[in-house]
Amino acid sequence: MERIGFIGLGIMGKPMSLHLLSAGYPLCVLDVVQSAQDQVIAAGARAGASPQEVAAQSDVVITMLPDSPEVEQVVFGKAGVLTGLRAGSLLIDMSTILPSMARRVAQAARAQAADALDAPVSGGQVGAQNATLSIMVGGAPAAFARAQPIFEKMGKNIVHVGEAGAGQIAKMANQIIVGVTILGVSEALLLAAKAGADPAKVREAISGGFAQSRILELHGQRMLQRAFQPGFKVKLHRKDMAIALNTAKELGVALPASANVAELLNALIANGGAELDHSALVTMLEKLANFQIPTTSI
Amino acid sequence: MERIGFIGLGIMGKPMSLHLLSAGYPLCVLDVVQSAQDQVIAAGARAGASPQEVAAQSDVVITMLPDSPEVEQVVFGKAGVLTGLRAGSLLIDMSTILPSMARRVAQAARAQAADALDAPVSGGQVGAQNATLSIMVGGAPAAFARAQPIFEKMGKNIVHVGEAGAGQIAKMANQIIVGVTILGVSEALLLAAKAGADPAKVREAISGGFAQSRILELHGQRMLQRAFQPGFKVKLHRKDMAIALNTAKELGVALPASANVAELLNALIANGGAELDHSALVTMLEKLANFQIPTTSI
Repeated sequence: MERIGFIGLGIMGKPMSLHLLSAGYPLCVLDVVQSAQDQVIAAGARAGASPQEVAAQSDVVITMLPDSPEVEQVVFGKAGVLTGLRAGSLLIDMSTILPSMARRVAQAARAQAADALDAPVSGGQVGAQNATLSIMVGGAPAAFARAQPIFEKMGKNIVHVGEAGAGQIAKMANQIIVGVTILGVSEALLLAAKAGADPAKVREAISGGFAQSRILELHGQRMLQRAFQPGFKVKLHRKDMAIALNTAKELGVALPASANVAELLNALIANGGAELDHSALVTMLEKLANFQIPTTSI
Repeated sequence: MERIGFIGLGIMGKPMSLHLLSAGYPLCVLDVVQSAQDQVIAAGARAGASPQEVAAQSDVVITMLPDSPEVEQVVFGKAGVLTGLRAGSLLIDMSTILPSMARRVAQAARAQAADALDAPVSGGQVGAQNATLSIMVGGAPAAFARAQPIFEKMGKNIVHVGEAGAGQIAKMANQIIVGVTILGVSEALLLAAKAGADPAKVREAISGGFAQSRILELHGQRMLQRAFQPGFKVKLHRKDMAIALNTAKELGVALPASANVAELLNALIANGGAELDHSALVTMLEKLANFQIPTTSI
């Protein structure tokens, strides 16, 4: 079995790494938070001293980090992954980062005769815990085939989207649609409630037609119940919208609704909502309207 | 069986009225376009000379008109429905209009001891032809019960949303979500394509998760195939977005994404797209980006 190195044992990385351990993979792990690392070591993993050492002792190196700067640091930094990455090994970054950064990582790995995949996920903490993550993969077909059995220990809907960066592009598209649909559902339910209708009845009436979406179903219900414990945190979605808008700027594409979503998430963070579920976006429109959707019993 | 008057025999009203005829209802019809009226008369309906005469000879009067001004004219105008509406009769407006106008109509009907329902539909021409429309109904429960057998001849998903105006409010919420989701899907697929990924692969990768919607499924495919024959016409969706934004202005609610959708539909009409399917909204973002999503073979 391939020896796996796993760097980044946060809310996502910890359950993902534990699934790999359970499947019998020899695992070498590293996190800046000692306590997170200790738990995975207690379950049978070895501790790596640095990204360099993790890479030097692994056939496959997985990184699961918060954002592009952390990936840049861990991969390109002093005693980083690249300083230890062996020819013939495979570097899989499962963080959600800029597609352009994913391509830089892939290029650097190839320059050392190693392979690389960008493989961001969706499905959140619950998906990580239940090994039901959606995994969107960019990179060479052979590298994807090599990684497939590993992905299958962590996720279910695993799609090879295209070449290096394509996984991050798919994740970016996903986060745009999720954010904009949350905004659309917020505008619709808020206006309906302010106009005097029962927003739960309205949601029921429109759920069977063209307005149907997972967001109307799940986040719409959260809005009606004011169930804003996460779920997917506002601060993470703002980060992902920044990736989309930065990429759009690089490429000269105007994204008016995505920009609105990012602004409202910024406002929500300024109002103390960073740790809430992203469906709490609706509360910023409520604030602007000086009106709150009545809670219902659905 | 109740005698039904049907005013407005356009792309929607004609097939709807024909279903009522097939079900055996005695029908008196009226349209400003003589040829539309002739076809329904050939199928067994009588012609009414004016809204007044149609109302005077009917137990239930249905109107299916383009917009609020037409409903105002037909209901409140000279020789309008109200001048002929009998006590105990039922006025059902199935047009998509301002909720505030729907309430005015209901109030006027009640002042003449008649009942009224606002019952806008979604599902388009195909839904009207196949009698599979979704019908969102506002008005008194007894009036809804009386109308139910009639609605069942024209639609399938029939929901009593609340009091007068609630049907229009639900329709407004529906059109907001549909428009904003189209914009979100447009932004996502355009950015993905410009970033170098295959947008069809991206759509496939994200369809199973939180980004899932009927719009991603149906309108997303239209965008990838550039299949912009309607469907639901741009000019009609712009009209519906104007209803939502006017209502939002009346009520002091800010709808940033809906405003973007309305602006882009305006631009599309200025560019000759009034008769296209509303998924053609994506072409305005393409114009701004000076880049077109490549057509694919999906």
